[in-house]
Amino acid sequence: MSYAILAASLRSAMQRRDQEAIERLIAEMQPADLAEFVQHEHTDTVLSLLQHLPLDQRAVAFGYLSVALQEELAATLTDRKLGELLQHMNADERADLFKLLDEDRQQALLHTMPRAEQENLRKLSSYEEGTAGAIMTSDYVAIPAYYDVTRALATVRDTGTHAETVYQLYCIDTDGRLLGTVSLRELILADPDSQVAELMTEEVVFVTADTAQEEVARLVARYDLLALPVINGGERLVGIVTYDDAMDVAEEEATEDMHKGMSIGKIEGGLRSASLYELYRKRVVWLVLLVFANIFSGAGIAYFEETIEAYIALVFFLPLLVDSGGNAGSQAATLMVRGMATGDVRSRDWAKLLGREVTVAIGLGLTMALAVSVVGIFRAGTEIAMVVAMSMVAIVIIGSLIGMILPFLLQRFGVDPATASAPLVTSIADASGVLIYFAIATAVLGLPV
Amino acid sequence: MSYAILAASLRSAMQRRDQEAIERLIAEMQPADLAEFVQHEHTDTVLSLLQHLPLDQRAVAFGYLSVALQEELAATLTDRKLGELLQHMNADERADLFKLLDEDRQQALLHTMPRAEQENLRKLSSYEEGTAGAIMTSDYVAIPAYYDVTRALATVRDTGTHAETVYQLYCIDTDGRLLGTVSLRELILADPDSQVAELMTEEVVFVTADTAQEEVARLVARYDLLALPVINGGERLVGIVTYDDAMDVAEEEATEDMHKGMSIGKIEGGLRSASLYELYRKRVVWLVLLVFANIFSGAGIAYFEETIEAYIALVFFLPLLVDSGGNAGSQAATLMVRGMATGDVRSRDWAKLLGREVTVAIGLGLTMALAVSVVGIFRAGTEIAMVVAMSMVAIVIIGSLIGMILPFLLQRFGVDPATASAPLVTSIADASGVLIYFAIATAVLGLPV
Repeated sequence: MSYAILAASLRSAMQRRDQEAIERLIAEMQPADLAEFVQHEHTDTVLSLLQHLPLDQRAVAFGYLSVALQEELAATLTDRKLGELLQHMNADERADLFKLLDEDRQQALLHTMPRAEQENLRKLSSYEEGTAGAIMTSDYVAIPAYYDVTRALATVRDTGTHAETVYQLYCIDTDGRLLGTVSLRELILADPDSQVAELMTEEVVFVTADTAQEEVARLVARYDLLALPVINGGERLVGIVTYDDAMDVAEEEATEDMHKGMSIGKIEGGLRSASLYELYRKRVVWLVLLVFANIFSGAGIAYFEETIEAYIALVFFLPLLVDSGGNAGSQAATLMVRGMATGDVRSRDWAKLLGREVTVAIGLGLTMALAVSVVGIFRAGTEIAMVVAMSMVAIVIIGSLIGMILPFLLQRFGVDPATASAPLVTSIADASGVLIYFAIATAVLGLPV
Repeated sequence: MSYAILAASLRSAMQRRDQEAIERLIAEMQPADLAEFVQHEHTDTVLSLLQHLPLDQRAVAFGYLSVALQEELAATLTDRKLGELLQHMNADERADLFKLLDEDRQQALLHTMPRAEQENLRKLSSYEEGTAGAIMTSDYVAIPAYYDVTRALATVRDTGTHAETVYQLYCIDTDGRLLGTVSLRELILADPDSQVAELMTEEVVFVTADTAQEEVARLVARYDLLALPVINGGERLVGIVTYDDAMDVAEEEATEDMHKGMSIGKIEGGLRSASLYELYRKRVVWLVLLVFANIFSGAGIAYFEETIEAYIALVFFLPLLVDSGGNAGSQAATLMVRGMATGDVRSRDWAKLLGREVTVAIGLGLTMALAVSVVGIFRAGTEIAMVVAMSMVAIVIIGSLIGMILPFLLQRFGVDPATASAPLVTSIADASGVLIYFAIATAVLGLPV
């Protein structure tokens, strides 16, 4: 059954207070679907619905809930209940939830846990947000490289129940240093007496705990990894990032880049759950900055006041020309920023791409000049149409160059290239566009004496 | 060693013609890295480098090459060599390459293959681009549900060598209908005598072969799947889409949406390899359309010619006001479009989101009006500053509403909501902005008699 049907049935069963149907439907639902279903319910309802699941599945469903809801629910649970739930969650999701609690609550919960788990939880929750450490899990299977296949498979059976993946196994030496990886497939197909060290792949892609999470996502996608091992300074294996968490990061980063491309700050937890003030705050900063940036355009126009007074028809084309420069520039910026984010464009391609962009921009400018001439001649006569067409070519080329160069410049100065947003590029292109347009107009049409 | 170091070493070994070093470095490189390295080499060099790899690894590396390069290389290979390579490629990548060849070549290659493989290849390459069928592979392990665990594991060992994943196994009935899934982990941990039918999960997420690829990627991410089964009309299992292919689709779709958000058409094979004409063509269409759309802004300005002649200072604020409406509108559109793409925003949230957007837009408009008043009073006096501030509030609200409503409207009419691009929203917001601005100005300032 699809989510929509299950959700509708569950809602009706809840209205009928049909406990049996509720239980059956919840058992049938995927944890991700159940999490979506309860997302906007009251905490009491959420808890009573989750209660129908066995503890391990409840822990999985809990991990799918939004951060805000997890925090709310945690506040209503007793230390014992929350501790139970935490112990059944994946190590990485447990650490994420733990980080949301206040100091006192954290201490109380740690006391309910075995010593080894306390250590592990403290460590996992200590990594900085946005790094490999913060998204990795300690639930992996490590196998000493001197084991034979039979013993390795026994280790998988013994320790694999709580591991997030048993399909990629990590071969370590006696100090816990990462030596290589072996897949469960290789173990199963291998001679039971052969040594893990003979089977393992030594060319391992890995990261350190402080690697940026977008780099982690990029590596997992580039090398089609099931999981990426994370090591600490001493080359000791400390965790793995699984592909599903890498996918979430990739989606999150793409969303952030798209928002940044429109000068919107990072919105935590999605559009629907964000508060009105958060939405306002994340949009207003740049919008106001751009108001001040536009003083330059205004000053440019003021400088050419006499030309404008003499040829009011020039104003008809002003929005069109500034928009066109902004559009072409935003296109160029978006192509570069996304290319840099996916690894398709690298800094060393800069000069080559500049040459290509100039060529393309000339083509775009000429075509748009042709289009605007048609409009221009009808509305304002040949002379002004010519001025507008010439300005169009110049403005589109300048706009495109601004859009192309800005992301590289920003990266050079250590700023995220995605800051080269459409609004920013448009504002810069505008100021130059206004100057170009009226300068050409004054030169061609002359000033009335 | 990192890619940069390996690449530099390989390049220097090639210059020294040190065959031994070349061979060693190629063996050390990840297939994805090797593919990137050879991407811009001549076909002869590419072939001689790939020659150093054993056939199966060569086939993997080949699958990582760009479509254009694969096509070029295929043209220089003999039927026998190409046939050999095809047989060692994954079923999905093989089908992708096969589709690039012309009819005659396809026929010649099919003749070099066993009958069953011919059928399979023909079928896999027949699905429409952009569907689950076109990205799925037939290299999966299917297990009759009446098998016991021992026999199931034997099947994995026998048929698993060529499968893309052996970690998720598909349980079928005697007609090949999908009954459920079981993971290799479950099989390994289970009692060897128990039946697969008892172990399998029957709540399976699946798609049909004609499901859109972005939906496939969305499901894989939502349910954290390792692979998503694909069935045909008769519920028969016909293939699986693995998580790594789903990740590629998600990245591709995000790139497409970002480009679309700037009115750039779909660019095949990345920015660096696209031809200049392709780049021009994918950008020019909308830019020219928008030139014509801007006739409305021009007409609006012409209508208020007298007001402008009387108060030239109004023109100073024109680019600022139209930009602000466009910026706020583009932000709203981007938030909606991305929210709809990730599933965070659904059509039924429409009314609620509209209310939120109006509230946020009023806040944004008032703040920006305040900012522009400061600038306005200094530049043009209190009266004009007041007109500009009032217009700003109205323009930002209208722009935001256009940006928010347009994606929903487009979806309603079966058009991709991502078509509500920044340039399109800006153009519509511009025309309304011009009318609002000069109408307010005429009303407040009056016309000189």
